[in-house]
Parts: sequence; structure tokens; C-alpha cells
Amino acid sequence: MESKYRAAAARAILTSLVTPYCPEATTLMKYCQLCAGPITHRIPPGDDKPRYCCIDCDVVFYENPKNIVGTLPVFGDKVLLCRRAIEPRYGLWTLPAGFMENGETTLQGAVRETLEEAGARIRAEDCELYTLFNLPYINQVYFFFLTTLRTPDFHAGTESLEVALFAEDEIPWDALAFSVVKVTLEQYFADRRSARFHVRMFDMQYSTERQLQAFLVSNSFTLKSPA
Amino acid sequence: MESKYRAAAARAILTSLVTPYCPEATTLMKYCQLCAGPITHRIPPGDDKPRYCCIDCDVVFYENPKNIVGTLPVFGDKVLLCRRAIEPRYGLWTLPAGFMENGETTLQGAVRETLEEAGARIRAEDCELYTLFNLPYINQVYFFFLTTLRTPDFHAGTESLEVALFAEDEIPWDALAFSVVKVTLEQYFADRRSARFHVRMFDMQYSTERQLQAFLVSNSFTLKSPA
Repeated sequence: MESKYRAAAARAILTSLVTPYCPEATTLMKYCQLCAGPITHRIPPGDDKPRYCCIDCDVVFYENPKNIVGTLPVFGDKVLLCRRAIEPRYGLWTLPAGFMENGETTLQGAVRETLEEAGARIRAEDCELYTLFNLPYINQVYFFFLTTLRTPDFHAGTESLEVALFAEDEIPWDALAFSVVKVTLEQYFADRRSARFHVRMFDMQYSTERQLQAFLVSNSFTLKSPA
Repeated sequence: MESKYRAAAARAILTSLVTPYCPEATTLMKYCQLCAGPITHRIPPGDDKPRYCCIDCDVVFYENPKNIVGTLPVFGDKVLLCRRAIEPRYGLWTLPAGFMENGETTLQGAVRETLEEAGARIRAEDCELYTLFNLPYINQVYFFFLTTLRTPDFHAGTESLEVALFAEDEIPWDALAFSVVKVTLEQYFADRRSARFHVRMFDMQYSTERQLQAFLVSNSFTLKSPA
């Protein structure tokens, strides 16, 4: 076993020197999680994309996008926002949202995050899917559910500095944490004015001026038979 | 370095004997991918769920659900299905779909899978988000886009035995590969009859009789202002 590990370590050092740059590899992987053998980044047989592969046991490790799930909680004519107590974007305002966990649904995750970050207990039957965002440059997909607060009961969780309700003219537009939050709020107030609420999916892309822009991909209001 | 690896290997064996059963851990992880140290499965400080943690370097490895992206391609009054050339469900019929990759959007992934599995080139502007499914028991989220084939050009990719168009009364209902495909087709033909197409999200759950059932979570047609 000694010599196996010594050889594996030597090869891992050599491998790290020749591993090609790969923008799709978001996490560093140097050793196999099954056998501790050295990892290389190469296109496996029958595949067309580079993957982390173990040189010793030939196992291939795939990386996939992660989902962020959250809510847009509404009480009367106001929406609920949380001021972030964590990086990134410490001190800026956001909607309650976080990484979807194994073992839960997107809506269960959104309800959980709303309780954890905003201390607000919402009911699944009060939620409807509302905005979705693809963020391919960071391998994320966002889901926001539109929901009702039955009572104005909320408090800052450990990841929030404060939680508050805002009318449209009170929204801190210049102090929002994320573009997906800004777009979701803009859609909500526009939909409220037209009294037509749509499910929309957007792609977030950087312009040539390095500005993050939202491109509408799909809109439930225009969904019709392809026939 | 020798003694470090020998000690790590010994601890990994001990760790594997005391690692608690965890239904949320979908992949086996015995060694740290960063330092090759032994992995344990425990609740990290400040967390409330067990995670894979390296005993040597204290890094925490998170596991999250994966997205499956696909399309429901329509040509005239027929829909396109693929007969699977791979396990699971070899020989059964399905819609073109597969794992979303890093660096792409949900729709880009769905367009790619439709080309790979069905040899059909669809255009992003012909696609609209249609059905979503949460499968928490296998940590997956499905996205199907409704799309139009401009011409009946398709052929079986390497993962398909054959690809064909089916009218509603020709659908091989008893030979469909997955419940999410059955539900998506049922919704499509029902929507076509009512001429009202909705974006719907479902939770897939096993009943007490071990039957997989779809529960409607969200429906764009009922989306209205929570105020």
C-alpha cells in the first residue's frame, strides 16, 4: 500500500503540471474520492467533454449546475427583502434564496430558505413558480416562487442583518445584491400593473461592456400549441 | 509523505466502519479530492445536515440535485419519441432529454440533447418552457421545453434505437420509459384539446402502494397577484 500511495502522489504532481485549463471545471479535484489515486482532466472514451478521471481506477467524475431556490414574499402592496449578513454582497438587499439541497423539491427548498433567512413561515399552497434564470457563467439555475405572507411575521435569520417590507417606491434599487433579484422585482411590479402574471425564464449574460443583462427565453403568456 | 498516506488509509478504513447511513449522500466519497485524506460524514459546525468532510484538511463537500433537460418536439399533430438504446429502461420510449452540463443554459442543454438523441435540429426561438418535475427521491429536477420541428428531419443518435413521430392514438403508453414523459405527453394532449397551454410544475412521489404519482405544484394559468 505504501508504494501505491507513493506512486500515486508522484503521478498526481506530474498530472497537475499537464492538466489542461478547463473553464467548465468549477471545483478543484486532485485525488480520486474512491481510491485516492491521481486525477487527470481529459475527454473519456465515448464522451465529447473533458471530465475529471481517475488514472488508477478509471472512474469519471461529472460536474453539473446547481439550483438556487427562493421566494418573492408579498404582504399587501409590499414585498419582503433581506439585507445580507454574509458575503458575497454583504449589506445589500436580496430575496430569501439559497442552494437547493438533496432530498427536497425546489419549492420545499424555497420555503426552507424563506424561514431560515427571513423568519417567515410560508405555505406551499400559497406559492406559484414565477421567475427562472440561467447563469451559465457560474453554472447556476435560479427558481423564484411568488408567495403570500398571511401575516407580517418575520425576523432576520443568521444570514440576514435585517428583514423588511418595501412598497414599490421604497425598493432600494441601487442596493440590491443580485441582478436576478432586480429582474424578478421589476417583473413583479410590471405584472401587478397589467394584472397579468406570467412564468418567465431568463438567460443572464454579460454584455461586451461587462454589464449583466437578462434575456427573456420563455414566457408562459405566449405559450401556445406548436401545431 | 509515506507515513501521511499510511495513516490516512488506516483512518479511512476506521472511518468507513463508523460512517452513519445517510440517504442524502448519493455518491460514495472515501478520500478527500484535495488532499487524499480520509472522509467522514458528519454535520459541520454551523450546519444542520450531514456532509462529507475531510478529517485532515476540514474541507466540506456539498452534494446537490442535478437537472435533466429535454424537449417535447411536435410536428403537425404528432410528437417525436426516442426508443432508448441504453439502460435504464432499454427499449422503452422517451422524450429526448439528458443531464444539463456546466457552461450551458437549460434550453441550450435541451436543444443539445434533442440533436444528440433524436438527430433533430431545433431552434431556441421555437422553444417554450413547458413542464418541470421535482424527483427528490433521486435528487433530480426535470425541465421539458415544448418545441416545433420545422421539418420532419431526425434520426436515431447513439443513445436511441429508433426515433419516430406519433399521433395521440399511436403513443405507446405502456412502453414509455419514465413517468415524467407520460405526464408531459398527457398534459400536452389535454392542453391541445383545450387550446390553453400552461407551464406546470409537478412533484413526483411514491404512493403507499409504491406507485409513482405526479402532484401539481404550480400552474401558470392560476398565477395571479398575491395581493
